[in-house]
Amino acid sequence: MARSSSGESVLSRVVRIVEVFDAETPALRVSEIARRAQLHIATASRLIEELVGYGWLQRDADRRVRIGVRMWELASRASPALGLREAAMPFLEDLHAVVGHHVQLGVRDGDEVLFLERLSAPGAVINVTRIAGRIPLHASSSGVVLLAHAPGHVQEKVLAGPLRAYTPHTIVDPKQLRGLLADVRRGGVAVCRGFIDVRATGVAVPLRDADNTVVAALSAVVPNDDNARVHIPALQAAARGISRAMGVHAPRDGSQHFSY
Amino acid sequence: MARSSSGESVLSRVVRIVEVFDAETPALRVSEIARRAQLHIATASRLIEELVGYGWLQRDADRRVRIGVRMWELASRASPALGLREAAMPFLEDLHAVVGHHVQLGVRDGDEVLFLERLSAPGAVINVTRIAGRIPLHASSSGVVLLAHAPGHVQEKVLAGPLRAYTPHTIVDPKQLRGLLADVRRGGVAVCRGFIDVRATGVAVPLRDADNTVVAALSAVVPNDDNARVHIPALQAAARGISRAMGVHAPRDGSQHFSY
Repeated sequence: MARSSSGESVLSRVVRIVEVFDAETPALRVSEIARRAQLHIATASRLIEELVGYGWLQRDADRRVRIGVRMWELASRASPALGLREAAMPFLEDLHAVVGHHVQLGVRDGDEVLFLERLSAPGAVINVTRIAGRIPLHASSSGVVLLAHAPGHVQEKVLAGPLRAYTPHTIVDPKQLRGLLADVRRGGVAVCRGFIDVRATGVAVPLRDADNTVVAALSAVVPNDDNARVHIPALQAAARGISRAMGVHAPRDGSQHFSY
Repeated sequence: MARSSSGESVLSRVVRIVEVFDAETPALRVSEIARRAQLHIATASRLIEELVGYGWLQRDADRRVRIGVRMWELASRASPALGLREAAMPFLEDLHAVVGHHVQLGVRDGDEVLFLERLSAPGAVINVTRIAGRIPLHASSSGVVLLAHAPGHVQEKVLAGPLRAYTPHTIVDPKQLRGLLADVRRGGVAVCRGFIDVRATGVAVPLRDADNTVVAALSAVVPNDDNARVHIPALQAAARGISRAMGVHAPRDGSQHFSY
């Protein structure tokens, strides 16, 4: 593929440009994009111009650049994430009505949880997760569930650390984390009190596909009080419902539509 | 930017590759991608390989290629569409609980409605809309609302046709459509009976930002019977709530976060 004199591909530069945008900085000037993507301003400017032409980026009235709605459309319309989310959505809505606060759906990507969906209520307890946001596996209830069912090499990599402490309650001792993972596999639920914020408790259960493989975690973030466990049955019932809905809609051609 | 001997840019080829995936064909073999994107198989193969490396595409167990979860993440985490959707979501959930059937949020992109969100219920009336799916403006209630408030040149382009008839009830006469648009601006609601499917009625209201500009349409798809209009007050109340929520969360730097 076409490469510059530095041996770098055009596509790698495009990827770097798109990666500078996130929830904190959704709109940036061309000069700022170039700086963050470590590209010459002329190079960045040319690529941005072309991306705007395809609708993958868009310009504000004040000439700042954002992710374009066309890129969201292309990424969403055929995304496996969207298939899982659509199967889960009716159950998430019911769960949210019962739990209040936050309910969310996450999948494992590498050693992080990636959240596909989150439903929140005004005045709900603090929750750092965001749609399309990530958290290290050991730090959230969804992550602990996904790590408990991850392949051995993923578990060993995470257990080898470093394990970041978000609060004094985050488990950062590998032996203790290993014990928690065994408990989660046995009990079918992770209850993580104050792992990310001392005011909140995460409660998560595994979500299995038609082959009984854990493909996602369904979780609630509720106040850190003695009532958190009361939400477990509703979470488990919703997870079963979603699994059944996925089974019904599973493609007949054997493709792994919901696996990551 | 780097171009092949045909003068075509690398980025244009990448765009063509990503565009072959949609809800009907979410997973394709490399040869099929090359054919649909009209690329030599060696070229397609090389670009797909690189895109897989960045996580923008991913491979199934059977080597078929899909949109990667990383592309969804990048496109979603900073997308203006997601900001609007997040403000709307609590109201959409309440509306869905009341209306049953389908509720949806759409924005105008060119001469089509692009649906950002849809909540549906099992057993609801037929509805052809999809998340990240498109419908021509004249054919759906959301589209009619968005067209009624679109710039003059967009209206003239659509009215100049062709106007596709989905059913005998789709309005394909420009004069009649012009009259409908005036009615919608006056009445603040579009009720479209059987425009896309004779069994369904779309009811849509405009959603305004803090500047009173129409930035989206909020709609319900319900059975085509005499009860459709009963949903208008709930839709209007939800639209006001979303507008207020957007005003509260509007960025202070004057950026057009919710406009398209």
